[in-house]
Amino acid sequence: MTAYRHLEERFRQIGAIEQAVSVLHWDTAAIMPEGGASARAEQLATLRLIAHRHLVAPQIEEMLAKAETAAGELGEWQRANLREMRRRWLHAAALPDAFVEAESRACSECEALWRKGRLENDFAAVLPGLERVLRIEREIAAIKAERLGTTPYEALLDQYEPGASVAVIDRLFDQIAEFLPDLIDAASARQAALPSADPSGPFPVETQRRLAIRLMERIGFDFAHGRLDISAHPFCGGTPDDVRITTRYNESNFARSMMGVLHETGHALYQRGLPVEWRLQPVGRARGMAMHESQSLLLEMQVCRSRAFLTYAAPIIRKAFGVAGPQWEVEALYRRQIRVRRGFIRVDADEMTYPAHVILRYRLERAMIAGDLQPSELPGAWAAAMRELLGVVPENDREGCLQDIHWYDGNWGYFPTYTLGALIAAQLFDAARRDIPELTQVIAEGEFMPLLGWMRERVHSKGSLLSTAQLVETATGRPLGTASFERHLRDRYLN
Amino acid sequence: MTAYRHLEERFRQIGAIEQAVSVLHWDTAAIMPEGGASARAEQLATLRLIAHRHLVAPQIEEMLAKAETAAGELGEWQRANLREMRRRWLHAAALPDAFVEAESRACSECEALWRKGRLENDFAAVLPGLERVLRIEREIAAIKAERLGTTPYEALLDQYEPGASVAVIDRLFDQIAEFLPDLIDAASARQAALPSADPSGPFPVETQRRLAIRLMERIGFDFAHGRLDISAHPFCGGTPDDVRITTRYNESNFARSMMGVLHETGHALYQRGLPVEWRLQPVGRARGMAMHESQSLLLEMQVCRSRAFLTYAAPIIRKAFGVAGPQWEVEALYRRQIRVRRGFIRVDADEMTYPAHVILRYRLERAMIAGDLQPSELPGAWAAAMRELLGVVPENDREGCLQDIHWYDGNWGYFPTYTLGALIAAQLFDAARRDIPELTQVIAEGEFMPLLGWMRERVHSKGSLLSTAQLVETATGRPLGTASFERHLRDRYLN
Repeated sequence: MTAYRHLEERFRQIGAIEQAVSVLHWDTAAIMPEGGASARAEQLATLRLIAHRHLVAPQIEEMLAKAETAAGELGEWQRANLREMRRRWLHAAALPDAFVEAESRACSECEALWRKGRLENDFAAVLPGLERVLRIEREIAAIKAERLGTTPYEALLDQYEPGASVAVIDRLFDQIAEFLPDLIDAASARQAALPSADPSGPFPVETQRRLAIRLMERIGFDFAHGRLDISAHPFCGGTPDDVRITTRYNESNFARSMMGVLHETGHALYQRGLPVEWRLQPVGRARGMAMHESQSLLLEMQVCRSRAFLTYAAPIIRKAFGVAGPQWEVEALYRRQIRVRRGFIRVDADEMTYPAHVILRYRLERAMIAGDLQPSELPGAWAAAMRELLGVVPENDREGCLQDIHWYDGNWGYFPTYTLGALIAAQLFDAARRDIPELTQVIAEGEFMPLLGWMRERVHSKGSLLSTAQLVETATGRPLGTASFERHLRDRYLN
Repeated sequence: MTAYRHLEERFRQIGAIEQAVSVLHWDTAAIMPEGGASARAEQLATLRLIAHRHLVAPQIEEMLAKAETAAGELGEWQRANLREMRRRWLHAAALPDAFVEAESRACSECEALWRKGRLENDFAAVLPGLERVLRIEREIAAIKAERLGTTPYEALLDQYEPGASVAVIDRLFDQIAEFLPDLIDAASARQAALPSADPSGPFPVETQRRLAIRLMERIGFDFAHGRLDISAHPFCGGTPDDVRITTRYNESNFARSMMGVLHETGHALYQRGLPVEWRLQPVGRARGMAMHESQSLLLEMQVCRSRAFLTYAAPIIRKAFGVAGPQWEVEALYRRQIRVRRGFIRVDADEMTYPAHVILRYRLERAMIAGDLQPSELPGAWAAAMRELLGVVPENDREGCLQDIHWYDGNWGYFPTYTLGALIAAQLFDAARRDIPELTQVIAEGEFMPLLGWMRERVHSKGSLLSTAQLVETATGRPLGTASFERHLRDRYLN
C-alpha cells in the first residue's frame, strides 16, 4: 500500500470516530436525560482523545512526507485530500498534550466564571479568567502561526476558516463599515413609517412542527436521512447521511422557529450534499465555517425572508394555523420578516445590523490577540465601537462584552465567519439568479430544486476540494466582494 | 503506577468506548433515519475494532500477568476486577483477527439467508449457511475451551453467562422437564373452564405511554437517568447513568406493551443500580445474561403479573383509559395476565411454557456443538422435542427451527440464560418475601422501594464481584434450584 492509501485508511477511522462524536454530541444537546451528563462527558473525551492520538501518531508525519513526495501520482481530489490531511495534522500536532490540557482547563474555568458573571453583570469577576484564556490563546496563535506560516490571528482563523486572510477580511469589513451606518439609518427611517403589529398566537407547538417539516421537505430536506428535534440552542448536527437539526418553539411567535428551522435546513442541505465518494475523508468535509454559514444564510436570508418565498408560504401558513386577514397577506408577512432594529444583542440582530456586531468583535479580538487591547479595557472599547458602528451603547456588560460565550470558552477567530458567510450567500444567490433567470418566480411557486441543484453542483459536491476563495470564485465567476450583499440590502430595505 | 492501575486506566477507556457503542446502538434501533444505516455501521465497526485492539494489545497480557502476581496487594473488588479483565481478555484474544472476520462474514451471510428463508419457510435454503456458522462456532468453542479450561459448549455459554456449568444446567433443566408437562396439563385444564374475553380497545398510544411512564416512575425508574422510546424489538440499552428502554404499542392490546415496559424496567433498574464506584470497569458490569434476565422476569413475572400488583394498578389502568366494568376488576385483569397456552413460538410463550422452548433449544444446540446432531436433522429433532416437552408439533419450520435468529447469527450458548433467569427470579423473590414479610401487601399498595432496596443491596450493587452461583447463594441463602420456580407456578396456576 502506498503512504497515501495508508493515510486514507487512517483518516477513514478518524472520520468514523468523529461521526460517532457528532451523533453523541447531538444526543447530549437534544435528548439525553440530564443525569447522563458526566458519563457522556467521559465517552466524548475518550473518543476525542483516541481520534487525536490517531491523528498525531508518529508514523503519520512520516507518511504525510512520503505521500507528498509522491503527490505527482495522485489525482486532483487525492492531492486536495492530502493537503487537508496535512492541515489537520498541523493543527493537531502543533501543541504538546500538556498545552491542550491547560487550554481545556482554562476555558472550562473561564466559561464557568462567565456563566455566573453574565447572569450577575459582573465583568470584573470574569476578567481574571478571560486574561488566562487570552494568554493561552496568544501562545497557541504564535505556535500555530509559525507552523502554518501565517500571522498569529490568521492561525486562529484557520481553525474555523482555513486559509482566511486578514488583509481580505479587513478590506471586506472596511467596505461594509463604510456603507452600513447610512444604510441602517435609511432603512430604519423607512420602516418607522410602516405599521408593524405582530399576531400574537398562540401557535401550537405541534402545528409549528408540522409546518416546519412540510417546508423542510419541500425545500429538499430528506427525512430518510435526517431528523428535526428540539434543543435549547438550535443547531445542525449528525452526519452527512443522517443530518439532525434542532429548533425551539415559542407559542407566541411562530416565525422565529420557522426561520430558525429554515436556517438550519441550509446547513443541513450542505452537509447532505457533500461528496459521497469522499465520506469520512478530510477533503469530503464542508469547506469551512464561512461556507457553512453561507448556506444557512442563503436559505434563510436570501430565499426564505424574500417576498417570493412568502408568496409560496403564506397560504400554507394561513392554513396551518387556521388564520386569515390582512396580517396574514404576503406583504404583511414579508414586512415582519425584514425588520431592522439597532439592538445590543448579536444573536437577536437582523441581517442588516448583524455585520456591525461581527466587525466590532473582529476588531476587538484582533487587537487583543495582537496585545494592543487589554481585557480590562474591553468594556470601554466595546462601547466606543458600538457607538461608531451602530450608534447605540449598551447600559451594561451583560448586553455588551459579556453576551457571547466565544472568547470565554476559547473560540477566538470564529466571529468573522458569520459575516463572511453573509457575503458569500449574497454573491452565490446573485450568481444563481444570473444562471437561472426564472429563479425568483419558481421560488414563489414553491420550486426549490433549481436552486438546490445549482448549489449542489457548484458548492456542496466540492467538499474541501478548493479553498473558500477559489470555491466562491469558481461558483460565482468573481472573487468574494461586498457588492452583492450591499445590493441585496439596498434592494430589500430601500426599494 | 502498578500494572493493575494501568489496566484500570486501559479498561476505563474500553468501557467508555463500549458505552458510546451502546448509545449509538440504541440510536440505531430507536430513532435513526433509515438512510443513516451504512454510515452508522461504519461508526460502530470502527469503535468496536478500536475497543478490541485496546483489549488485545500486546502489553495487556504482560500487565495481566504482572498484576496477578501482585494480586495479594489488591482489595476484594480489585481482585474481582482483575479476574473479569482476564476473562474479557481471554475471550477477545483467543481468536486470531482473521477468524473473527470469518465468523462475522459467515454470520452476516447466514442471517441474510435466514431472513429470506424464514419468510418463505424454506429451511433447505438456509441450511448451507447454518452449516458454515456451526462449523465456525465449533472451532471457536474448541479454541476457547482450551483457553478457559471448560468443555466446548461451556466456552460458548461463558460468553453470555460467565462460569456457567453444563452439569448444573442439565440438573436444573432435567428437573423442570420432569415436572413441567403435568403442570402445563393441569393449568390448561383449569384455565379452559374460565372465561377469557379480552377488551378490544382501541387504547390510544399516547395514553399507553403515559400509563407506562407513571408505572415506571412509581416502581423506581428515574427519568433523570433514562428514557422510554419506541423500537421494533423492545430492549434495554444505554448506560447505567442513562438507561434507555424501548417498547412498541398495539392499540388493541395495551397489556402487551405495559408488561413489555415493565419487563425492560427490570433490566433498567439492574443497570441503574450497578456500583457507581466501578463504572466503566469490568467488575462494575452486570453479572451476566442470566442475572440480567432474572431482573426483568422478577419485575414482570413475579411482581407485575401478580394479583397484588394488579390490585394497585387496576384503578390506575381504569382511569387512564376511562373504562369500567367486570372486565376491569382486579381478578379479571389478573386472569388475563396469567394465561397458559401451548404455542409454537418462544417469544409469544407464557412463563409456564417458556422453559420448554428453552430446554428444547439448549438440548439441540448442545448436540449440534458436540457433533451429535447435524443441522440437516434439525427439523426432525425439533418436532420430536416439541412433542416430548410441550405435546404440540409445528406444521412448518417457520414456526419451528426457523423462528429464532440466535443460531443463524452466531449466538450459540445464549438460550439457557432465559430459563436460568426465570429460576433466579423466583428464588430471589422468595428470599425477598422471607426478608420482607409484608412485601405482597406493600406491592398491592404501590410501594416498590422495599423490594428495590433489597435488590439493590443484594444484587445490583454487587456488579460482577461474585460469580452468578455465589451471587444467588449469597442473596437467597441457598444454591440455585428449581424449587422456588416450581412453587411459584403451582401457587399461581393451580391454586
